[in-house]
Amino acid sequence: MSDPATTTPRAARPAAHASRRPLAAAALAELQARFGPQCSVARAVREHHGRDESPLDVPPPDAVVYAHSHEDVVDAVRIAARHGVPLIPFGAGSSLEGHVLAVDGGMSLDLTRLDRVLRIEPEDLTATVQAGVSRLALNDALRGSGLFFPIDPGADATLGGMCATGASGTNAVRYGTMRENVLALTAVTAAGETIHTGTRARKSSAGYDLTRLLVGSEGTLAVITEVTLRLHPLPEAMSAALCHFPDVAAAVRTASLVIQSGIPIARCELLDALAVRAVNRHSHLALRESPLLLMEFHGSAAAVREQAESVQAIATEEGGGGFEWAVHPEERTRLWQARHMAYFAMLQLRPGSRSVTTDVCVPISRLAECIERTREDLDASSLETAIIGHVGDGNFHVLILVDPDDAAERARAEAANDRLTERALALGGTCTGEHGIGLHKMRFLARERDPATLAVMRALKRALDPGNILNPGKILPPPAGDV
Amino acid sequence: MSDPATTTPRAARPAAHASRRPLAAAALAELQARFGPQCSVARAVREHHGRDESPLDVPPPDAVVYAHSHEDVVDAVRIAARHGVPLIPFGAGSSLEGHVLAVDGGMSLDLTRLDRVLRIEPEDLTATVQAGVSRLALNDALRGSGLFFPIDPGADATLGGMCATGASGTNAVRYGTMRENVLALTAVTAAGETIHTGTRARKSSAGYDLTRLLVGSEGTLAVITEVTLRLHPLPEAMSAALCHFPDVAAAVRTASLVIQSGIPIARCELLDALAVRAVNRHSHLALRESPLLLMEFHGSAAAVREQAESVQAIATEEGGGGFEWAVHPEERTRLWQARHMAYFAMLQLRPGSRSVTTDVCVPISRLAECIERTREDLDASSLETAIIGHVGDGNFHVLILVDPDDAAERARAEAANDRLTERALALGGTCTGEHGIGLHKMRFLARERDPATLAVMRALKRALDPGNILNPGKILPPPAGDV
Repeated sequence: MSDPATTTPRAARPAAHASRRPLAAAALAELQARFGPQCSVARAVREHHGRDESPLDVPPPDAVVYAHSHEDVVDAVRIAARHGVPLIPFGAGSSLEGHVLAVDGGMSLDLTRLDRVLRIEPEDLTATVQAGVSRLALNDALRGSGLFFPIDPGADATLGGMCATGASGTNAVRYGTMRENVLALTAVTAAGETIHTGTRARKSSAGYDLTRLLVGSEGTLAVITEVTLRLHPLPEAMSAALCHFPDVAAAVRTASLVIQSGIPIARCELLDALAVRAVNRHSHLALRESPLLLMEFHGSAAAVREQAESVQAIATEEGGGGFEWAVHPEERTRLWQARHMAYFAMLQLRPGSRSVTTDVCVPISRLAECIERTREDLDASSLETAIIGHVGDGNFHVLILVDPDDAAERARAEAANDRLTERALALGGTCTGEHGIGLHKMRFLARERDPATLAVMRALKRALDPGNILNPGKILPPPAGDV
Repeated sequence: MSDPATTTPRAARPAAHASRRPLAAAALAELQARFGPQCSVARAVREHHGRDESPLDVPPPDAVVYAHSHEDVVDAVRIAARHGVPLIPFGAGSSLEGHVLAVDGGMSLDLTRLDRVLRIEPEDLTATVQAGVSRLALNDALRGSGLFFPIDPGADATLGGMCATGASGTNAVRYGTMRENVLALTAVTAAGETIHTGTRARKSSAGYDLTRLLVGSEGTLAVITEVTLRLHPLPEAMSAALCHFPDVAAAVRTASLVIQSGIPIARCELLDALAVRAVNRHSHLALRESPLLLMEFHGSAAAVREQAESVQAIATEEGGGGFEWAVHPEERTRLWQARHMAYFAMLQLRPGSRSVTTDVCVPISRLAECIERTREDLDASSLETAIIGHVGDGNFHVLILVDPDDAAERARAEAANDRLTERALALGGTCTGEHGIGLHKMRFLARERDPATLAVMRALKRALDPGNILNPGKILPPPAGDV
């Protein structure tokens, strides 16, 4: 859910982490000597690397280095280490929580030129790519192989970035998240050493699981340069279905029952009424403006038919109706258009607005309650909001439209975000199902995890990055507690 | 594959780690004052906790403490920390590579009394158990819920131990390993602090993935006391099939093609001819003594039928025949008896023998080659061996029968183990798919991972256990390199 369009209003960054370490002249000289034109201090370049899709406003990095090779990454990290300069890995810039902002200054290390698909081994269902390859580029390279890489966070993010944030998205309910689909990584430590985690074997119990430690570490423990991924056979058949419900609770109950029944649904997305209205206006559609589930089924032709029938029976019991089915690719695309356009469409509901975009994830039995109470809260707040979710996983997003020049409205949006997080945590959930912590959710991580657990995370950071040069000021709130 | 029957010959432990820290009188007095009869120094008790199913012979721990509660674990760890005494978490004692041996002395902390199933949340498909609950006890508790916990390493291991070793087994090809099925952990750090990792939500991107760091850490980073697991709906239908092949290569090619076709097979086990012969003699069966695949299919009745038909078509192409099918539970049990009895049966082939049991995992396209070359090597070694494997994952085991009193034969078995590992690594695999490193495979980990990657693992260990009290001398070979 990191569509580039979900930009959000700029707000002052939390002050607690201010420990700016600007790039000293000596460090810059060394970077320029080593990297020549691959190192830029141009304002436009720095500003491009000084923002993501978060609502935070932070000065840009002092320099940007474009890595063209693993060795470039090694040398950039070594220069950063020698001079104690922050280094922030940068991919597509599509993160939503301030992951790539140069909060302490320093250099942004752009990895998008590491864009080679290194190996595809169809018989092993694996591919190895450089970190800057995007998920769509990988799927292009897989065309004709009968295989695909399913993880789809919305944006055409880089696979290195998707590892770093532990991305997931619409297909995760069936295929898992990045955690379940990364087999091995090559990365550069804060000391500039190259490490290799995992192998191409489907499983391993050989020592500490460094692969899973780096997945979700948001560039704070090492810089990922190569990724070995699990691929999946393209299903023999796919079908999509759209189903309307009288209310959000009925739609969510349907999703829960589908999961509890063990039906291997491939996608199960909720759009609430406002999101449907936005899509109708944006794409000149005439969908009924009630909550809907968009679903997809993968498997053999018979299995897909059977799954679809089972789900239709459950949905009908819950008051679902107005089914539309699609088997052919163009028909499926038409149905999914509603989902894909939701972010763009929301912004157009109110010209000039931005969207504060957040996510939580709760145990599936608490999802209906969490969404209903969130809907009541949002309605009472008089904010313009939509709820969209990967409800098969218990994961949903709230989009809150705000006027970027209206500080009071922005504050109300942040307050609603706070209440949403408290609600999710109280229901046994997490403050982020897939967006990550970055800068913006550090205060939420401090509520989700007790001090002893945060202390362990800090110990890991200190052990692997004693100079605090790798993406400093992210994930871990200062030991005092709430940021 | 940690059946209690796969005992192996005792051999001298590697000397490189000798840094014995016996329990000082003051520490023992403190343990006895705190734990009373829960603390034992009886020889029989210590010896029971001084061995697992590995071939290594190590003096027993100096004391055994039985934890009855999380608080007992906290206090035991604090006493160990205060006195700098090694503490080794102990569950079922079914590990195969020396994980629980008191190589540096100290206390064994028996967790089997932490045996309460704390919560089952059927709607969320989750359960939370104390670390000492065994997998069969959990499945007993789940009876009638329509759910089950699929991970099955053979032995009735404790779930805490299965987390610690990153266990998997026959069902992993469909349901994943412990890594994919643990949502959250409660654990005690080396400082005696309680940490909580993960939540009951199906996914999270909230900070470093401490859950996955502890899974597979073999008790060296923290002591796991509670485990929250993903459960799975019992499939509507199950069927099992047995199929004979002219040679191991044809059986392995069949397994590879099934995986590459995306057929969601639930189990896919290879027994080679010697294993079948052993089973025939042990269980008075009359199976054809040729390599066979034992398979299981889970899903709706129609899906199971369809999967079975697809697999039969592939197997027939590869020369497979003599199919036997089983749908009813008793029939399935009869077919699986061959698999379940293989270890016992192997030992009975040669009375008085022990089995050296090892495992590797390779990319699926290299599995046939790896197994064929291993079979040639073993045949040339004149050792009595069987190959049994979770071939759908590229994971297989070699059982080598040895006379425990024949040092030369034991040495030949170890040499074959070395060559097997080198072969698996050269083919892009790992030195252990599921048994873990423990004490016995440290020299293999040093070959699989480069020094920089091992240094990162050591840095994690130092960060979380600076006093080196938690299961010391395991996983990480001394920095010099090969043990």
